[in-house]
Amino acid sequence: MEELSNNKCFDGEQLRFSHKSSTVNCEMQFSVFLPPQAKESSVPVLFWLSGLTCTDENFVFKAGAQKYASKYGIAIIAPDTSPRGKGIPDDVEGAYDFGLGAGFYLNATEYPWNLNYQMHDYINNELTKLIEKEFPVNLDRCGIFGHSMGGHGALCIGLKNPKRFKAISAFAPICSPINCSWGKKAFKNYLGDDEDNWKNYDACELVLENKAVQQPVLVDQGSDDEFLSTQLKPELLEKAFNKAERSLQLRMQNGYDHSYFFIASFIQDHLRFHRDNL
Amino acid sequence: MEELSNNKCFDGEQLRFSHKSSTVNCEMQFSVFLPPQAKESSVPVLFWLSGLTCTDENFVFKAGAQKYASKYGIAIIAPDTSPRGKGIPDDVEGAYDFGLGAGFYLNATEYPWNLNYQMHDYINNELTKLIEKEFPVNLDRCGIFGHSMGGHGALCIGLKNPKRFKAISAFAPICSPINCSWGKKAFKNYLGDDEDNWKNYDACELVLENKAVQQPVLVDQGSDDEFLSTQLKPELLEKAFNKAERSLQLRMQNGYDHSYFFIASFIQDHLRFHRDNL
Repeated sequence: MEELSNNKCFDGEQLRFSHKSSTVNCEMQFSVFLPPQAKESSVPVLFWLSGLTCTDENFVFKAGAQKYASKYGIAIIAPDTSPRGKGIPDDVEGAYDFGLGAGFYLNATEYPWNLNYQMHDYINNELTKLIEKEFPVNLDRCGIFGHSMGGHGALCIGLKNPKRFKAISAFAPICSPINCSWGKKAFKNYLGDDEDNWKNYDACELVLENKAVQQPVLVDQGSDDEFLSTQLKPELLEKAFNKAERSLQLRMQNGYDHSYFFIASFIQDHLRFHRDNL
Repeated sequence: MEELSNNKCFDGEQLRFSHKSSTVNCEMQFSVFLPPQAKESSVPVLFWLSGLTCTDENFVFKAGAQKYASKYGIAIIAPDTSPRGKGIPDDVEGAYDFGLGAGFYLNATEYPWNLNYQMHDYINNELTKLIEKEFPVNLDRCGIFGHSMGGHGALCIGLKNPKRFKAISAFAPICSPINCSWGKKAFKNYLGDDEDNWKNYDACELVLENKAVQQPVLVDQGSDDEFLSTQLKPELLEKAFNKAERSLQLRMQNGYDHSYFFIASFIQDHLRFHRDNL
């Protein structure tokens, strides 16, 4: 693991690293915020998953989370959104919604994507183990959150691994990828034609499949989000939670769009939510 | 004036515009944050001047100022750091510290720079008039702040125009451009060989020249800033203020560097400083 940068921020440390991943078979970058409390003892930890086209850095620069992570004493890990680098396959047309920057946080089964696009296992296994080894974090107090495609990722990885992730939150998540064009394109390519296999990475399906799990879940959605009705569809998530008789805190935020200006406006609430539930 | 973007942010509006400037003779972009209070009445206004290589957008994305501007009811205007576009002259080698992205907030006198690089008058006259005409801001309650080259700009434009700018603050400003290599290169090119003319844009000289002015001035400087001893030299500013028997609030911030992580860590203090002094 190589340290790429280190900046003091809100009395804590904003760090960036590169490491060779055996799960996705390439060099991967990730960012870590360590609050000042981490100098004294191990701290709770949150994984942030970013959306389409992002790297690990968008959240670090734009969300303004460090202030509250510092105040509440929480570490934040921000992985990249896909494998990257020479030889990593990408969408043939270089589209923003598939391939590089669009890993959809799943384990691909179809060639050639299966050689690298194993983002679920990268985050849930390899990166988590590395974080535990290298930083003073307490994995018994671990949450996950994200935005858009990363909101889908947070919901899926969180719902699939409830013993690891004690709380889940999301900004404008893709709530049911099997029911929108972004998800259908990605799942068809990564997972093949059998749509039954797609359900394994659909938050609405996962909620219904595992009703006994009762992690707290918070979702914020802007009412003026350009992708609201075509790609995100929070009403499907609400319906699934209702059907499973599980609690979902879904907040429609009037006038907000899909940008990081929306995320920054409510990031404090998400940090507080995780603090209170970890 | 054309609106390029509009995002709801902390219950206010983060806006971006383009307009044809007759002062710098090209199309210019600038960003504006309007707090929710601006819907009801005119609000105090701050000009933010960015550093080398920045556009109007770096501050908007990275500083996290909107939260406090919203809370305190202050508008923030972020201009670009130089004229831009086809036909605008740049450093012959495309260096980061002169030409595009490096206007140094002065009025160039040397050809060809004098045709476009009139950033002092652009900000102090043309942009200010446009802002007053287009937005509900109260120019009797106006402050200025900035970072690095923009900290130099805030100090100079503020000190030269005390009736307009009632308070000045800066993060890691170039305190005496006539005494560092960044400033010497820029001033020689923009203002010519006569070093007497350079003093007109040197904060330390301006403080001594106009001792009667007593604007409140706050400066934050990171102790681990890589440019501290070679380019920034806050000790020269402190000496000038002492000699002029003026008050300077200079805070050395232990362990912080030159990045926006440093700015974000203390931006609330600067918004509060301007709120209390406007």
